[in-house]
Amino acid sequence: MPVFLDATSADFEVEFTKLLNAKREDSPDVDAVVADIIADVRARGDQAVIDLTAKFDRLTLTADTLRITDDEIAAAIAQVSTEDRTALELAAARIRAYHARQLPQDEQWTDEAGATLGWRWGAVSAAGLYVPGGLASYPSSVLMNAIPAKVAGVGRLAMVVPTPDGVLNPLVLLAAQISGVDEVYRIGGAQAVAALAYGTDTIAPVDKITGPGNAFVAAAKRRVFGKVGIDMIAGPSEILVVADGDNDPEWIALDLLSQAEHDESAQSLLITTDAAFGQAVADAVEKQLETLQRAHIAGPSWRDFGAIITVPDLATAAALTDRIAPEHLELCVGDPEALSKNISHAGAIFLGQWTPEAIGDYVGGPNHVLPTARSARFSSGLSVLDFMKRTTIARMTPEALRAIGPAAERLATSESLEAHGLSVTARLKKLND
Amino acid sequence: MPVFLDATSADFEVEFTKLLNAKREDSPDVDAVVADIIADVRARGDQAVIDLTAKFDRLTLTADTLRITDDEIAAAIAQVSTEDRTALELAAARIRAYHARQLPQDEQWTDEAGATLGWRWGAVSAAGLYVPGGLASYPSSVLMNAIPAKVAGVGRLAMVVPTPDGVLNPLVLLAAQISGVDEVYRIGGAQAVAALAYGTDTIAPVDKITGPGNAFVAAAKRRVFGKVGIDMIAGPSEILVVADGDNDPEWIALDLLSQAEHDESAQSLLITTDAAFGQAVADAVEKQLETLQRAHIAGPSWRDFGAIITVPDLATAAALTDRIAPEHLELCVGDPEALSKNISHAGAIFLGQWTPEAIGDYVGGPNHVLPTARSARFSSGLSVLDFMKRTTIARMTPEALRAIGPAAERLATSESLEAHGLSVTARLKKLND
Repeated sequence: MPVFLDATSADFEVEFTKLLNAKREDSPDVDAVVADIIADVRARGDQAVIDLTAKFDRLTLTADTLRITDDEIAAAIAQVSTEDRTALELAAARIRAYHARQLPQDEQWTDEAGATLGWRWGAVSAAGLYVPGGLASYPSSVLMNAIPAKVAGVGRLAMVVPTPDGVLNPLVLLAAQISGVDEVYRIGGAQAVAALAYGTDTIAPVDKITGPGNAFVAAAKRRVFGKVGIDMIAGPSEILVVADGDNDPEWIALDLLSQAEHDESAQSLLITTDAAFGQAVADAVEKQLETLQRAHIAGPSWRDFGAIITVPDLATAAALTDRIAPEHLELCVGDPEALSKNISHAGAIFLGQWTPEAIGDYVGGPNHVLPTARSARFSSGLSVLDFMKRTTIARMTPEALRAIGPAAERLATSESLEAHGLSVTARLKKLND
Repeated sequence: MPVFLDATSADFEVEFTKLLNAKREDSPDVDAVVADIIADVRARGDQAVIDLTAKFDRLTLTADTLRITDDEIAAAIAQVSTEDRTALELAAARIRAYHARQLPQDEQWTDEAGATLGWRWGAVSAAGLYVPGGLASYPSSVLMNAIPAKVAGVGRLAMVVPTPDGVLNPLVLLAAQISGVDEVYRIGGAQAVAALAYGTDTIAPVDKITGPGNAFVAAAKRRVFGKVGIDMIAGPSEILVVADGDNDPEWIALDLLSQAEHDESAQSLLITTDAAFGQAVADAVEKQLETLQRAHIAGPSWRDFGAIITVPDLATAAALTDRIAPEHLELCVGDPEALSKNISHAGAIFLGQWTPEAIGDYVGGPNHVLPTARSARFSSGLSVLDFMKRTTIARMTPEALRAIGPAAERLATSESLEAHGLSVTARLKKLND
């Protein structure tokens, strides 16, 4: 059973703080192993990647077979059913339409001093997408990472996906094709991250690496950060549902379980103004767990990290929500828009009972790569901006320099940076000659 | 003397690659020390900070004197000259005006399926600003970090600045006041970063930490990343000037020296279409170094990492510039706008000979916290967005769910995530009842 809390009880603050601080993930310390793998790939390039793939994926490759060919991709994709393809294409179109609206504007203006100022956005030239192998190899994640990159204008998008024992995942390859991925390599682990960051004879280096992965992949991304850009390191998934009593307990139970089934470390929380409804949801969860295919995962997650919190009113719900800063937030209340305006910290908000979080995982349009572990306090989900960067622009006229240059000279002097000041002084002198 | 390269020579590619890969910074490995300091602050809070400040800054504090009081700030600021205050206020006004234009827009729309989608931007609730002590304690950096945070809408901005032997820096405190900093603590080092990230009895925790610092501060920021957000870890400063022969060699020499004087590891590069002009700049640098106050810093930087590269044309200059991806880029050519359009990777561009980079350090308006070490390929300078985060919004109507829900069910099934699918199925069933 999950923990039941009541926001009006004397020990609530202690219990709620305990819930917030619960450590849900033990990251194994693989940093030394990963450091060796990266050093090996930097030193031996393709051959290191080939040797490590033989060791970890039981797959013998050569430099010529690291890349999955277009013919192989076409043959794999031919196995995909029409229904799956249609669903994936609908998802891709909706994700593309949403992300296209995120494209930022360049700006340029001339101010009253005569200075022309502005900025210009540009895409990262080359990006790498890590896709896990095996059970966590999700075509939807390929769409969610690759489409924003291509909408941003990334010229070269290289994907790596391990294929243990050589088995290709047709839906993952179809998602890559639909998204416009340019190159696919059948490699994974820290060696794939190292190959993307530093390049090998066969794999050209990229500038940014995104995508989920296991502890080795996460450690490798941390290590190559600086040499290339990376996205956030995702923790276990979370959902918070805020619901009044006017909901179907079964729907809410399934929404909670759709996070719990991801991972034994996932967390599903319910805040409700109706204690009896909370109990009904708990009962509905137990009933679903009797038959759910992934009950062996969802059960432990719900038991160990789930919670049902009863609150006296929605204002309390909003305040607790901000302290949780959930990755996914469902607002199943009479006026979800109004409640959402009182909440500052959440990765994604799903408004009303007709918007199950699973819609957002696949076909809603917004990205499903979202900040976990309370990081919605300071970070955002993946977007087109993650594949772009901004260059600031400034142009002074002689008049503009005459107007604002003396202040720069003064500040340079106060910071004892003489050459800074002289670079302005020399120009002002010419103007005054 | 710096290295002289000619883009048309046979060994250019080898020499240029060597220049690109030159290791300019040896970061001492202070990670173990920093881990201990952070653990100490987490365990003992204020008392650990007090003990470490006594040890490193030779300053005896109590919990009551960690914070610099408003009266102390007022007394220190009273020492600032009118000229310095006026210059700082001009800089602040221009930085504020530039950054105000970066405030992003919320969006919301309803698509043809009937789904209401969008996003909402919000500010980080609390941010911490690290300001180095001693020689690198720059009031301009206070403005450049604090003003974007306040423009973003950060409610609580806490600044930490070590005051070795108890000496306050009046201009730094004035910059904090002008920028709207809410709290100032006289602490520094890894202990200050730990206090901001985890909080103590006296210092409430923040959500994001920005600002430059030494190796201990950088290591501490890396360690607390995840618990809080951080800005980039800045490397030594760089400038690339692209100039034709129609420039004053002395101006360009001073621009190059204004980076070189920051740090012996700084790098100043000149690309020119005119070999004789390149030599004239080299001569002008040597002449300036005879009298420059910081010649002991600028000289080694120029000698060890400076370079003058002669190119046959501006197209070659643009191509090399993208490979360098410089932090600061000056385009001192006849049509700098045209040249800038051929360049993809630079932190900040200064157009034309009347725009010395030093203007951007102080009063131009754009931020002077910029990506170093070629990271302009994938990252941007500090901006208002660094203190904001985006929450995505989705609302389905029953009709919208009927339209796109089946695709979500299909994809959930293909990913073996049964509860995801069932959360949609249960709702569609109700619609079809």
